[in-house]
Amino acid sequence: MTRVALLSRSANLSYFQPLLQGLAPELDVAVWPDPRSLHADVAVCWNPPVGVYDDMPNLKLIHSIAAGVDNLLDGQRTRGLPVCRVVDPQLAQGMLQYVLWCVLTFHRKLDLALSNQRAARWSRPPQTPASQCRIGLMGLGELGGAIAAVLPGMGYPVNGWSRTPRSIDGVRVYAGEDAFDEFLANTDVLVCLVPLTDATRGILNRRTFDALPQGAAVVNCGRGEHLVAADLIDALARGQLRGAVLDVFAQEPLDPADPLWSTPGVIVTPHMATMPSPDTVAEQVVANIRRLGQGESLAHTVDLTRGY
Amino acid sequence: MTRVALLSRSANLSYFQPLLQGLAPELDVAVWPDPRSLHADVAVCWNPPVGVYDDMPNLKLIHSIAAGVDNLLDGQRTRGLPVCRVVDPQLAQGMLQYVLWCVLTFHRKLDLALSNQRAARWSRPPQTPASQCRIGLMGLGELGGAIAAVLPGMGYPVNGWSRTPRSIDGVRVYAGEDAFDEFLANTDVLVCLVPLTDATRGILNRRTFDALPQGAAVVNCGRGEHLVAADLIDALARGQLRGAVLDVFAQEPLDPADPLWSTPGVIVTPHMATMPSPDTVAEQVVANIRRLGQGESLAHTVDLTRGY
Repeated sequence: MTRVALLSRSANLSYFQPLLQGLAPELDVAVWPDPRSLHADVAVCWNPPVGVYDDMPNLKLIHSIAAGVDNLLDGQRTRGLPVCRVVDPQLAQGMLQYVLWCVLTFHRKLDLALSNQRAARWSRPPQTPASQCRIGLMGLGELGGAIAAVLPGMGYPVNGWSRTPRSIDGVRVYAGEDAFDEFLANTDVLVCLVPLTDATRGILNRRTFDALPQGAAVVNCGRGEHLVAADLIDALARGQLRGAVLDVFAQEPLDPADPLWSTPGVIVTPHMATMPSPDTVAEQVVANIRRLGQGESLAHTVDLTRGY
Repeated sequence: MTRVALLSRSANLSYFQPLLQGLAPELDVAVWPDPRSLHADVAVCWNPPVGVYDDMPNLKLIHSIAAGVDNLLDGQRTRGLPVCRVVDPQLAQGMLQYVLWCVLTFHRKLDLALSNQRAARWSRPPQTPASQCRIGLMGLGELGGAIAAVLPGMGYPVNGWSRTPRSIDGVRVYAGEDAFDEFLANTDVLVCLVPLTDATRGILNRRTFDALPQGAAVVNCGRGEHLVAADLIDALARGQLRGAVLDVFAQEPLDPADPLWSTPGVIVTPHMATMPSPDTVAEQVVANIRRLGQGESLAHTVDLTRGY
């Protein structure tokens, strides 16, 4: 019998228990802090308690319930165990919808209409064609790639930035650190979709903002730790940036006293851009547990040297 | 020499003077209330002074600067003269962007995120796939048709309602008044794009709202006179409707004291959904003036018995 632990210090994962057992009645599923969870063979995690893996002598597999794994690696010794994530095609669809909304908000200046409404002020913003609104996608993985496949057809010039060179129809790809400044100089709406690694932590900082054309906008759907919030607030106050949509934050929920809630030009959304469906998560976790039991190779394993 | 009058009681159309003369230096262009404008052969109009056509003995053609002509017909005797409008392919592109923003706002519940932000409230709204958000397009002309061509590919079920039956791939078309209630019953986001005629004035009223499923949303990018504003405010207060985006108003600019500015659930935008480019307007007006001079048939004439 395989024992599974649902581990999170910030979310209640108990709703996965019936989903997992519905697919695999033979599983013994415990929810942390139930002490049985420490005997588990498989850890299914979102923000697990720091150091918990060291207290789990039988652990053979660490599985994320999402696409990102930074939250379950950060400061944790994974002891050479395989780490897997969830890859849900619907995830890219949700992110595409969210990013499209952000792009339209800035391109069509609906952010100005929204703030004007609060002052009952009628002011028609000048409009420009999509061809004059250059989108810069930081990250061209499953999520960025799905967006890169759609935006050019809507008339937007699309630039992409990734660690390694690649070719995408209708997208100008800038690869590696050396090309980052040129990528930024050609970007009117910057969308952060890179994984959180030591190389990308704090990448949305003053230097990055100042390399964008004046009046550019920023969308963060990566991780809260990508952003240096004080630099964003400053760049908006200086007029270097015109606006930002933020979906992710270093501390979630965002503190009600956080200045980002009320910074002019900032739209805050509650980490809602996209999320795998619980059914898909349960299916992929159960499939990997079965592969583990049969000694087969696991799906969607994470390369820990890259961090994604 | 053809004499042209630019006629508006609500907008300053003088910027068309150099555009028209740049394309056709032989034209004599006057801007109302310049008395010379009353001698014109061609009236180029947006909200022209009521009854002005009767004071223009030489008038041979009435030309809109936009797709809609209601503003230049309403209460005016057009004395059997031809009336033309502007058909700009970019117009449909702009409308598509705007309506897509509205659809994404309601489907992804970004309207709730925006209102939660004002209270610094973190609350993740439950999400549903696009396949569960049925879009109802009232009007399948150039604008509605362009939207109907794109939304199904994004996963939205699309219903269309038009005066006459037609066939559009991936769209369920309801034709005529008899089918209106069934169309409404299958619509979660209703988008008004019909021309303003006696048959459609006030069509966004209590009866229409109550025929939608509870919690539906309404987008008005037609004309302000399509909406019975008091009925909308009431339907929102009753919870029959969940939200509305309004781009057009019976009186524009919308009065700063108008309750729509601050009605919870209402997003007000300043008639910005789309607009023909001034260059395109000038080209089409000059082309029709030349056709008129050569006795050729005019482009984009309006059927005054239908009103569009």
